[in-house]
Amino acid sequence: MSIEIKGVHQAFHGKVVLDNLNLTIEPNKIYGLLGRNGAGKSTLLNIISDRVPARSGAVTMDGQSVHENNAALGNLYLMSEVNLYPPRNKVDQLFKKTANFYGGFDTAYAHRLAGEFGLDLNARFGKLSTGYRSIFKLIIALCVPVDYVFLDEPVLGLDANHRDLFYQELLSAYGERPRTFVISTHLIEEVANLIEHVFVLDDHRIIINGDVSDVLAKAYAISGPQADVDRYTAGLNIIGADHLAGIAVTYVYGTLDNSRPIPDTVQVANQDLQKLFINLTNTTKEVSTNVN
Amino acid sequence: MSIEIKGVHQAFHGKVVLDNLNLTIEPNKIYGLLGRNGAGKSTLLNIISDRVPARSGAVTMDGQSVHENNAALGNLYLMSEVNLYPPRNKVDQLFKKTANFYGGFDTAYAHRLAGEFGLDLNARFGKLSTGYRSIFKLIIALCVPVDYVFLDEPVLGLDANHRDLFYQELLSAYGERPRTFVISTHLIEEVANLIEHVFVLDDHRIIINGDVSDVLAKAYAISGPQADVDRYTAGLNIIGADHLAGIAVTYVYGTLDNSRPIPDTVQVANQDLQKLFINLTNTTKEVSTNVN
Repeated sequence: MSIEIKGVHQAFHGKVVLDNLNLTIEPNKIYGLLGRNGAGKSTLLNIISDRVPARSGAVTMDGQSVHENNAALGNLYLMSEVNLYPPRNKVDQLFKKTANFYGGFDTAYAHRLAGEFGLDLNARFGKLSTGYRSIFKLIIALCVPVDYVFLDEPVLGLDANHRDLFYQELLSAYGERPRTFVISTHLIEEVANLIEHVFVLDDHRIIINGDVSDVLAKAYAISGPQADVDRYTAGLNIIGADHLAGIAVTYVYGTLDNSRPIPDTVQVANQDLQKLFINLTNTTKEVSTNVN
Repeated sequence: MSIEIKGVHQAFHGKVVLDNLNLTIEPNKIYGLLGRNGAGKSTLLNIISDRVPARSGAVTMDGQSVHENNAALGNLYLMSEVNLYPPRNKVDQLFKKTANFYGGFDTAYAHRLAGEFGLDLNARFGKLSTGYRSIFKLIIALCVPVDYVFLDEPVLGLDANHRDLFYQELLSAYGERPRTFVISTHLIEEVANLIEHVFVLDDHRIIINGDVSDVLAKAYAISGPQADVDRYTAGLNIIGADHLAGIAVTYVYGTLDNSRPIPDTVQVANQDLQKLFINLTNTTKEVSTNVN
């Protein structure tokens, strides 16, 4: 039981968008899919859900290709920024349509969530603000009876309270009925405690594919006087640097050299997931940190 | 030298949007303007910058009304979600137009920032993505020679790297030439270390107006077994509660009772600014935390 992405390659107008990707998405796990704007995250999600065909490669669910496979596609749901709903339809009509399409749609839960988020069941979809369009789609994503839910920028336009409520509801829904969620978001620190496994897509390839705890255990921030930090980090996998009020901070991803004693002047701490992501994907680092 | 907002009242279609607001915005200070979706933040910024007239009340800069006052309005800049730029104009043309309007526009810095953010000077404004429209407007906001800069949702659509770069550039620009920035944003935790003073707008009124350090010093998270937490927090200003794996967390805003000893089973910690904001503005708290 899993979704397998094998050798998926995509290009538009001769530009590579996804470069020969291989990934496994397991059941009952919460994933983060992280990448910069333009990294190919939405394209990947569209290929997995068969909205867009890949140039080459295959996506399978339990060994069967998802392509034009109604059984497989009925077992996954993609919430995306694209608004596929008729603007004149009312919220509750759209819940009913969704319930007709997906047999086991949890209408009672959808109504309860609408109440909690303050979403008017009689509002027309086209009249909703960006935030409430996201909320409407989030509610559907939490109530569809599928095993794989893909969320592309789920909290777009939501204020801090509604984001917090969504994260709580996601965990609660997961607790009630475990299933897989794949969350693609730019608000990395907010999902860092929610996700178990992280994929980082950069330059059209997967550069990180691991459990969050394992990934963070290798992400160090080493600070102190520049010369001491440089000596301690020489030869390690340095991924970035900051300078704050005379203190040098060097970011390392990988193993430290345990044979080297840590100088008294040097502090070794961990990077959080968002900072690690920024360091790993900052291709214009040389330019961007050159600030006076 | 300051901007004074005195008794500003606004209503649309009989609904109060701003209820008799009084605020002082001082020179050379970085402010956060926080509020839920629909709280009236954008309306307030539009009134301050004379884009929209208030029903009653006055906005003054150095004692002079800003209304139809070109000298005052030329000394403030509002970056907003509204796109006021002709879609067919190219980025560099728009920089030139802005430079013609504002005598001391820093074109060299604008070009350097465009390079750092990867903004193409030859792109037409209408062809830019949401993220790059924000970046274009941010660059203008950092380069205009005014003393008061208002930023309404400045990082909309930006990925984590570009948000990080913007925060660095804001601090760097502030360091080079101190001026006032007022930042309205839903990404509260990301600006918590950037802002000196915070305004919280809720239910059309200002409910917090203070230095961030003073505000956070009064924001407590008290955790432990429910009965012990209840006994310790009885009678205090309780603003919210969470339950995490059998541990009760009660949030307090205000002073603790120093005559009460802290039980050994109880931990007293601080809330971060985003959590404090959520607790203070969660009007649907009873409903929203009733999750199994």
